[in-house]
Amino acid sequence: MSDTPDSAVQTVRGYIDQHRAAFLDDLVEWLRIPSVSAQPAHAPDVRRSAEWLTAKLRETGFPVAEVWETDGAPAVYAEWPSGDPDAPTVLVYGHHDVQPAAREDGWETDPFEPVVRGGRLYARGAADDKGQVFFHTLGVRAHLALTGRSAPAVNLKLLVEGEEESGSPHFRALVERHRDRLEADAVVVSDTGMWSETTPTVCTGLRGVADCEIELYGPDQDIHSGAFGGAVPNPATIAARLVAALHDENERVTIPGFYDGVEELTDSERALIAELPFDETSWLANASSYGTLGEAGYSTLERVWARPTAEVNGIGGGYQGPGGKTIVPASAQLKLSFRLVSGQDPYVIEAAVRDWVAARVPDGIRHKIAFGAPTRPCLTPLDHPALQAVVRSMSRAFDGAKIRFTREGGSGPAADLQDVLHAPVLFLGISVPSDGWHAPNEKVELDLLLKGVETAAHLWGDLAGALR
Amino acid sequence: MSDTPDSAVQTVRGYIDQHRAAFLDDLVEWLRIPSVSAQPAHAPDVRRSAEWLTAKLRETGFPVAEVWETDGAPAVYAEWPSGDPDAPTVLVYGHHDVQPAAREDGWETDPFEPVVRGGRLYARGAADDKGQVFFHTLGVRAHLALTGRSAPAVNLKLLVEGEEESGSPHFRALVERHRDRLEADAVVVSDTGMWSETTPTVCTGLRGVADCEIELYGPDQDIHSGAFGGAVPNPATIAARLVAALHDENERVTIPGFYDGVEELTDSERALIAELPFDETSWLANASSYGTLGEAGYSTLERVWARPTAEVNGIGGGYQGPGGKTIVPASAQLKLSFRLVSGQDPYVIEAAVRDWVAARVPDGIRHKIAFGAPTRPCLTPLDHPALQAVVRSMSRAFDGAKIRFTREGGSGPAADLQDVLHAPVLFLGISVPSDGWHAPNEKVELDLLLKGVETAAHLWGDLAGALR
Repeated sequence: MSDTPDSAVQTVRGYIDQHRAAFLDDLVEWLRIPSVSAQPAHAPDVRRSAEWLTAKLRETGFPVAEVWETDGAPAVYAEWPSGDPDAPTVLVYGHHDVQPAAREDGWETDPFEPVVRGGRLYARGAADDKGQVFFHTLGVRAHLALTGRSAPAVNLKLLVEGEEESGSPHFRALVERHRDRLEADAVVVSDTGMWSETTPTVCTGLRGVADCEIELYGPDQDIHSGAFGGAVPNPATIAARLVAALHDENERVTIPGFYDGVEELTDSERALIAELPFDETSWLANASSYGTLGEAGYSTLERVWARPTAEVNGIGGGYQGPGGKTIVPASAQLKLSFRLVSGQDPYVIEAAVRDWVAARVPDGIRHKIAFGAPTRPCLTPLDHPALQAVVRSMSRAFDGAKIRFTREGGSGPAADLQDVLHAPVLFLGISVPSDGWHAPNEKVELDLLLKGVETAAHLWGDLAGALR
Repeated sequence: MSDTPDSAVQTVRGYIDQHRAAFLDDLVEWLRIPSVSAQPAHAPDVRRSAEWLTAKLRETGFPVAEVWETDGAPAVYAEWPSGDPDAPTVLVYGHHDVQPAAREDGWETDPFEPVVRGGRLYARGAADDKGQVFFHTLGVRAHLALTGRSAPAVNLKLLVEGEEESGSPHFRALVERHRDRLEADAVVVSDTGMWSETTPTVCTGLRGVADCEIELYGPDQDIHSGAFGGAVPNPATIAARLVAALHDENERVTIPGFYDGVEELTDSERALIAELPFDETSWLANASSYGTLGEAGYSTLERVWARPTAEVNGIGGGYQGPGGKTIVPASAQLKLSFRLVSGQDPYVIEAAVRDWVAARVPDGIRHKIAFGAPTRPCLTPLDHPALQAVVRSMSRAFDGAKIRFTREGGSGPAADLQDVLHAPVLFLGISVPSDGWHAPNEKVELDLLLKGVETAAHLWGDLAGALR
């Protein structure tokens, strides 16, 4: 099936076998750094993570490897020129920060003390995204071993940000500031996943996300629900009413204008999605869930890949301790996020949400609403030659398997790179749904991690041709 | 105005003046015991509070003062027989446990280190209910000083429970077990309040309360809202939908059967309520609130005194820490309470709520619901002679002021006493709305606390006549 001689595959595999132990040792060292960008207490760890990666990229051979400051957490930039004046330029994107994680959330082992069990490496960030950034280090070395070159076949650039798990608030500014140095003919994003261990796929799109925190204030302090209850507005009730009003009986978002401009799935896109070996039982198992619920008229995959959502990520108000406390609470809080699809503008959504909330908060309740920096949705044309190069390289790594197409329901700042750099975005990810992104016991499959290395080893030569 | 000679009033006041300092010192000592019944860690403190009170009642002169065990926190029982074979028996009810309180909730001083500022005693329990239990100690001594008796004019019994703030789960069983010893011709409940410092009132009814905790379980763990959001039910959303569905657009509770049997206010009762000097601005200030909201067709006072409610006391689910976390939460929790009025049966309400919740939880969400022990509503006939005796005694303490009638929106186990002992329930409370029951910076007005002592000093003689 593959158009590459078996010898190339064997050369790459041989090289990887020789270096995999050291590669994994290094990755484990990086995963030990709790680079949680959402928690201010971990800011020094995020910096330490950036410095660790910079040193490691220099050691890998990148002649340029720098910590790039932002108004928030630092990013890492590295560059390895091809030396060939006609070589196209490829920018690899990933992130070195991770989601919050604490043992008591349900981790079987310390989230920042990586362990290998049953061919899996368990740690916060193992799949999202340190593992997937890190396969590029051994990948480019294997590419050199394969081609006999002393520099990559493309001008290879790496941008590894430190605030992705906080919504990348300073990423767009960073990209705009360094627009010239980041210039690229294509962006390769390694922060996505595949269908499964046995169905390798390439992702073609991400949803965007806009998120907000809403504070609702009622009484100045918690008050007696007997003495006052039934006669004053309860901010927890109002918070709940906001959440309940987000969706209609068809689970469609009710905020006026929310669906304006949404790029609807074509019949052929729906058919491609329907061809995937989707099994609801195993999908639910990966989701650790016991039922499906979503927008009427769409399949589960369509719902998570191609439909926008409104989700409550957190709600709190009143007494949450043991026993009861008969109060009308002083305040309540909501954390909402809106997944967005191609055609939606996060700033238009933000304005619509603000208006909608303001119109629904009754007299006697004061409110504040604050949005984080949004992430735009992103969609790559299926017929782009560079996408076909990714498919070919991946097929080599996966023993000639047919590579299918997916999207991801998650979000990344890929769209900012697309916007600012005017470059097509490709996705190269080897994570699988069971990896447990953002969840306790996050892991990466070691076999797949090495398939990522292998794909990267083939990709730079193939892309050099496709982009020329 | 009073039918008692001025000399009686003066005698009582002289006696109180002489003993107020020691009385307050004792009360402060009691308030230092953090007898929080809702928090298991404070169980030893609740016991210490019971033991402290028992010793103090013996010191006051009660020949019988005992700690009564329950399946939960201990109660205190004391008895002081009149010696007169024809004397009626009066049972005083109060509670020695208090609401949870922590400095960080907004207390200006330690809630369990009482301080006097501006004629007010600040401490958790100052008004609810230790202060109001404690005025009976000096009250009965002043009664003896007034009458020259060596024992009260009524057979005086005291029952001071230790679980009122936890919904009195074992109170009814306790009362049933000791039915014979508790036998009384009237119950005097000192766990309510007055209209204001300048409008003394007697309460004639309490709302009941039924409360529950609802746990809603979605995914086995928090899951990525990008990867799965929009396709699985979110337990925080379902919790919010339950809360939002509790009320219709007229703020009436929607649970089928909820209003069945509710004793509606008569026109004359509504007129009496309307006569009270109600000022919405100052009521809102006492409620620390910025607006009213309640059942359409009823005034604010009617809503809190005579209408049943559904209130969310606490809601929680998902990520509530700093920053954002894009998850579908694994679970959500609700603490709901339902205030009930005369004619509603809490067990009927419980069954209706269980059915209503079960019918509204979608596939894929599992739920648990647990009710605490309910408290029944309670209403005293306005024309009862014993109620008139309370009015007369209070009028003496308040310099001949007209005593008006109120109800309270709060709840107490008074109705259990009424049920089991077949005795009318009278209310003698001197707390005012600004005392901040269940709130940070709870206080009692020292002047009013002593009016409580004074009323009790007059009451036993007057009740001896009224109940004979």
